[in-house]
Amino acid sequence: MNKNIAIVGATGAVGTLVRKLLVQRKFPYGEIRFLASEKSAGKEIEFDGRAVPVELMRPAAFDGIDIVIGSTPDEVALEFAPWAVAAGAVVVDESGAHRMLDHVPLVVPEVNAAAIAEHQGIIASPNCSTTQMVLAMKPIHDFASIRRVIVTTYQATSGAGVQGNADLENGTRASIENVEWKYRAFSHPIAFNVIPQIGSVQDNGYTSEEMKMVVETQKIFSCPSLEVCPTCVRVPVQNCHSESIILETEKPVSPDEARQLFEAAAGIKLMDDPRNGIYPMPIHCDDLDDVFVGRIRRDLSRENSLAFWCVSDNLRKGAATNAVQIAELLASTEYSKCSSSN
Amino acid sequence: MNKNIAIVGATGAVGTLVRKLLVQRKFPYGEIRFLASEKSAGKEIEFDGRAVPVELMRPAAFDGIDIVIGSTPDEVALEFAPWAVAAGAVVVDESGAHRMLDHVPLVVPEVNAAAIAEHQGIIASPNCSTTQMVLAMKPIHDFASIRRVIVTTYQATSGAGVQGNADLENGTRASIENVEWKYRAFSHPIAFNVIPQIGSVQDNGYTSEEMKMVVETQKIFSCPSLEVCPTCVRVPVQNCHSESIILETEKPVSPDEARQLFEAAAGIKLMDDPRNGIYPMPIHCDDLDDVFVGRIRRDLSRENSLAFWCVSDNLRKGAATNAVQIAELLASTEYSKCSSSN
Repeated sequence: MNKNIAIVGATGAVGTLVRKLLVQRKFPYGEIRFLASEKSAGKEIEFDGRAVPVELMRPAAFDGIDIVIGSTPDEVALEFAPWAVAAGAVVVDESGAHRMLDHVPLVVPEVNAAAIAEHQGIIASPNCSTTQMVLAMKPIHDFASIRRVIVTTYQATSGAGVQGNADLENGTRASIENVEWKYRAFSHPIAFNVIPQIGSVQDNGYTSEEMKMVVETQKIFSCPSLEVCPTCVRVPVQNCHSESIILETEKPVSPDEARQLFEAAAGIKLMDDPRNGIYPMPIHCDDLDDVFVGRIRRDLSRENSLAFWCVSDNLRKGAATNAVQIAELLASTEYSKCSSSN
Repeated sequence: MNKNIAIVGATGAVGTLVRKLLVQRKFPYGEIRFLASEKSAGKEIEFDGRAVPVELMRPAAFDGIDIVIGSTPDEVALEFAPWAVAAGAVVVDESGAHRMLDHVPLVVPEVNAAAIAEHQGIIASPNCSTTQMVLAMKPIHDFASIRRVIVTTYQATSGAGVQGNADLENGTRASIENVEWKYRAFSHPIAFNVIPQIGSVQDNGYTSEEMKMVVETQKIFSCPSLEVCPTCVRVPVQNCHSESIILETEKPVSPDEARQLFEAAAGIKLMDDPRNGIYPMPIHCDDLDDVFVGRIRRDLSRENSLAFWCVSDNLRKGAATNAVQIAELLASTEYSKCSSSN
């Protein structure tokens, strides 16, 4: 049976992609409802060939809804999620508000789809930098048991929202024309620069973005002893995060074995012919759902350690696609038993 | 006594900086001679308030010269170095042509100045990405013995020469105006992109730039067992290389101890107050000689492991400044005994 869907934050960058993906992927929806704050409520937006009004996000707006996809800041998610759950809907939350709560599954379908069955009304989608990494880790972990991950990121400005991309574009123009640009999304210039801070700085010297990569990875693999050393850096790229990843494993895994594992894995595309200049780069991965891997090689500095490079569209698999995939699983027969919807 | 100096490649980006630094640092020069290929010979360039002709690089051009600073491609260095040595000069070579030869010291003065005494006519200056890293490693290595280095770079386009920066600027303009730009220094677009390849790809899957970071680091520390796992990446930044560095050490070193060690070290500037947005970035380090470090923190994934962020001007300490420092040591009393000059 088709599911009644509400999207909260439907007019944002990720919400716009969610709308597009529901149509492209032929999501089995019944009613569709777009919810937003007072600022956006009252507008009409196009969906699947017709105009749909944007309604005010309030408790009664969730009546009759089966699945809510939330693409909002944390504070908005904390406000609407209890209303949606009370109305009997299941929330797929892309924000960071609920990810680390014990009763909330944190899900990347290719990695831990079964965790969906444990939900009590809310399922969280991980942070973008975590999602592409755990997806790439999964086949290696199944084969060789990962003990330690060292990850260094090159994150796009779209991760800082629409204003992040406006800062990059306007800041770059201003830099070329040698005039000033007042950055809004970033506390330092991002044009022709790299910024080694994403999020706030914690007591241990790590940023909130870095700590998400640690704790979310441990939760997704149900493995608190999996050690992660992250460094998160913003680079002047519009879209698609790149990550340099080193995996130390219990059993050996050769580059050739890794290539075979990646090739056979759902959601992963191998681009690994560096002698011919073939490896993933942000310009290749824009608006695609896969996680791309390349530059696969033995870590020269340790046995049982594998190095590679990984790029993915942070707005798609890193956010919208992953949430829609979770919603698809909720809508499917396999998981319908665990839905608390009416 | 003042030394007679020749600069080969004096009109290039690094050679231009070498000329500037010799004047700024009041290098004790006697005669100064600029040498170049037929293309540039015959021009005049300004030096210390007077016009100096650019002479053709040929064996006789090194007669009477004490110290040669070479800022040239490898193949040019291989051509002129034997002529210079035969004429009794000492060559400070910034190219990669001689670095790994047993009889050629590879020197970063703050790290292994004493190696200069072993020279037989040629002293090499390391690759830019190596130089800033080994300088930052030195105080930690002396205190705690480094066993393993994991380094991930964010390298500026100036490392690919004048054409690299032209590609970045013109490619960026073209991208903003939505027109084509034919890249010359890079085999992929660098505007709003990152390229995980610098140099050619070796049999082991590493690039030539990455392997330089391995073998040069081992040679500079006279420590073939020092393990290095490098990933070198080009980013759309005009100048100054950034590096995320993880050092695994034999003895523990806390972040506070590391800060004290960095503060006391020659050539290093500490910028480490991330809560207030203070850490090194390329925009801060341009046209400065120091190696800047920040984001110092304990590696969450292993005991006796330290993570930090390091930025330096790849044309200055990464090239011109390091070469001029070596020349200064050659010119000083302390090292004059080992000069084979007349």
